[in-house]
Amino acid sequence: PKPYKELTDVCWGDPHSLGVKPLTFVRQVLAACVYPELMSSHKLPLDVRQRAQWLLGKCEGGSIGSYPASAGIPEIIQRMSKSIARRDGGVPCNPENVFISPGSQWSLTNIIHVLVNDEAPLRTGILIPVPCHVTTITSITSLGAAVVPYFLSEEHGWALQVEELQRALESAKGGCNPIALYVINPGNPAGYVQSRKSIQEVIRFASEKRLVLLADEVYQDCVYGKNSEFVSYKKVLAEMGPPFSDTVELASFHSVSKGFMGECGLRGGYVELVNLDPNVVNYISNLNYDTTSVLAQFALDLMMNPPRPGDPSYPLYNQVRNANMLVQNVKMAHEVVNSLPGLSCQPVEGGAFVFPRVFLPPRAIQKAKEEGMQPDTFYCMRLLEETGVLITPGCEYRQKEGTYHIRFCIMASQDTINKALKHLATFHTKFMKDFS
Amino acid sequence: PKPYKELTDVCWGDPHSLGVKPLTFVRQVLAACVYPELMSSHKLPLDVRQRAQWLLGKCEGGSIGSYPASAGIPEIIQRMSKSIARRDGGVPCNPENVFISPGSQWSLTNIIHVLVNDEAPLRTGILIPVPCHVTTITSITSLGAAVVPYFLSEEHGWALQVEELQRALESAKGGCNPIALYVINPGNPAGYVQSRKSIQEVIRFASEKRLVLLADEVYQDCVYGKNSEFVSYKKVLAEMGPPFSDTVELASFHSVSKGFMGECGLRGGYVELVNLDPNVVNYISNLNYDTTSVLAQFALDLMMNPPRPGDPSYPLYNQVRNANMLVQNVKMAHEVVNSLPGLSCQPVEGGAFVFPRVFLPPRAIQKAKEEGMQPDTFYCMRLLEETGVLITPGCEYRQKEGTYHIRFCIMASQDTINKALKHLATFHTKFMKDFS
Repeated sequence: PKPYKELTDVCWGDPHSLGVKPLTFVRQVLAACVYPELMSSHKLPLDVRQRAQWLLGKCEGGSIGSYPASAGIPEIIQRMSKSIARRDGGVPCNPENVFISPGSQWSLTNIIHVLVNDEAPLRTGILIPVPCHVTTITSITSLGAAVVPYFLSEEHGWALQVEELQRALESAKGGCNPIALYVINPGNPAGYVQSRKSIQEVIRFASEKRLVLLADEVYQDCVYGKNSEFVSYKKVLAEMGPPFSDTVELASFHSVSKGFMGECGLRGGYVELVNLDPNVVNYISNLNYDTTSVLAQFALDLMMNPPRPGDPSYPLYNQVRNANMLVQNVKMAHEVVNSLPGLSCQPVEGGAFVFPRVFLPPRAIQKAKEEGMQPDTFYCMRLLEETGVLITPGCEYRQKEGTYHIRFCIMASQDTINKALKHLATFHTKFMKDFS
Repeated sequence: PKPYKELTDVCWGDPHSLGVKPLTFVRQVLAACVYPELMSSHKLPLDVRQRAQWLLGKCEGGSIGSYPASAGIPEIIQRMSKSIARRDGGVPCNPENVFISPGSQWSLTNIIHVLVNDEAPLRTGILIPVPCHVTTITSITSLGAAVVPYFLSEEHGWALQVEELQRALESAKGGCNPIALYVINPGNPAGYVQSRKSIQEVIRFASEKRLVLLADEVYQDCVYGKNSEFVSYKKVLAEMGPPFSDTVELASFHSVSKGFMGECGLRGGYVELVNLDPNVVNYISNLNYDTTSVLAQFALDLMMNPPRPGDPSYPLYNQVRNANMLVQNVKMAHEVVNSLPGLSCQPVEGGAFVFPRVFLPPRAIQKAKEEGMQPDTFYCMRLLEETGVLITPGCEYRQKEGTYHIRFCIMASQDTINKALKHLATFHTKFMKDFS
């Protein structure tokens, strides 16, 4: 018998599982494509029917059931490229550099796979931020590469500092051969948004050290900070001009799972490759893209070309977009967390997560050790046992020695977030008292 | 300026591209899952709405947009197992042996990948039938394994003869180390259906020679021969009892792309592993199954659990099922082809293709050589240029030296097949006359 009635699982960036509703426009178009008989009724808005017609027109036999071209439906990839160029204020995007996949992690894993040199005397190294989400760390290590951690500066709102990149690179000497620098912007788990200046510094560093830049930009549509703005690595690279713009190797990842749309179950993503070694591009282009379903490709088109002002679906779309559910959630989480002594959270400017620091009392740390657990895991286990709220401990994302954190997703319904925060506040106050 | 108005492409097993309509039941359920608002109207049959409810109930948050469990949605895999057991007259199927994927070729490639030993002095060999569809040959060679061909006996309706397996195995000696035997039943490109007796012989051979059986059974629902019946390798293996049933290693592949449903664009398939080395099972179970979309998993459920008598959707489903479009197409193709001197086709008992032999006149063979082409490629090129009908030459599937074939898909609308056959007949008669 547990002291709680239901589990509130806010561990993962899986918005639909946390009560977030799918976008009506997206689902209507996909439904009409699946069952085109729906288009004969006028219940679906005109732009929905038009988009569905357009998409089906790009399929052999006008059916989502026919095989798409192996590298993806060409017209969709062309529109994606135009959309990327629009995002970047006109910086050109070559459709031949855009590769669809069943998700951004799939693309990333395959790129790392081809970058890793199994036969070199030194292991291939990849610089990763600390904290960093788990899937990338797992991909890197399971492919036989070494993780070279660089620490983000929590005190400076999780800023990425070039001196720290330098230190990390030095630390790798003799242990492995670092060839790539992985960055996450907007951050996961730490919700920072990099400034243009910070991105410029990173690009200069990558150029000087000849590192391939792997830019995880899947939360590009999720920026809440009033003074924050998402600027892509691709755009900054183009703005910097030669020699940077035509030499620095960059892979930028995006996904229909993340951000505003949150369609994790459709399995769709892409990577844009800029200046990459032709061997890498060749390997990626020869991969079996038959893994990406037609509907996932349609979802990429819908994500990158949402309704525009004047379209029948625009008002509802815009209303949901502007409802600022996430802004509200972030504000609430930030306020509650920072009001509790022993919890402290940097500003959350983007992404899907809150990653506050927990200042655990020595007695709690001692108790965790006795139970053979990391201190923040102990905290999270207690929270789960006493309240049914499931969050993850900072140790899973790596953290500076002697610091402890917790992570939870704010891409959830307000009800879910309210409940989680209420339980967290009660639990935390009692926990701190018990172990003081 | 071409002498034809439109292209008739009957190369590939891609029914929806060839005018075949999707199954209404399948599309209605998927549309309701994508856009659950459709369920509030009574326009969709009750069983469609019930199935959609059941499927959505297995998704976190009731949405196809949430992440499915990494190895697939457990309840769907359980129902698939029951369905496999039902197909096999009650032979048990353990859900832990069923692995979903974005297609049967994806599963096959990954199994071959783990079977291939890169470091052994002799290359790993895999026995494959001749003729064999191209994708498997490509997978095997691109993974560094050697193809060991065994010839099916065209004179005996493309029968698989054990003496020929024996010959092929002997021929490999010293050149490679054969470890697996790939069989296709029902056949592709040659439309045979193996008898129980033939399967028993193959299993005994695999057992004696310690070969892993890789059984491509994706056309299991496409059997037309009056006296033909699909019996799975799994069922025959179980019937044979020990020591066969608990030692012979078997992988059986199926897909939503093939057969009756023909949903190639959804990217869904599975493999069932029986008696396989735990290392192989472990590798397969650890693969990133996040590649298979929720809708592809739903499609697997729908394929394996179609409407039953009494369900509102059953009459229409059964009508389409019994319309025998394919039976008619096969009959027509067989009649036309065998009525033309110089073309000869064995009975087509199953699968999606017709693979007749072409007896090319020496002058045509000579002309092909002059143009640097395989003789049957020359024939197909001429057919394309003169009529716009696109088929594939037998040389792409391998064939006995000095014999020539053509392949085309009969899983198409009757209109498409009629048109293709009419053009073929006119072209062939003229071609034979021109080169006689």
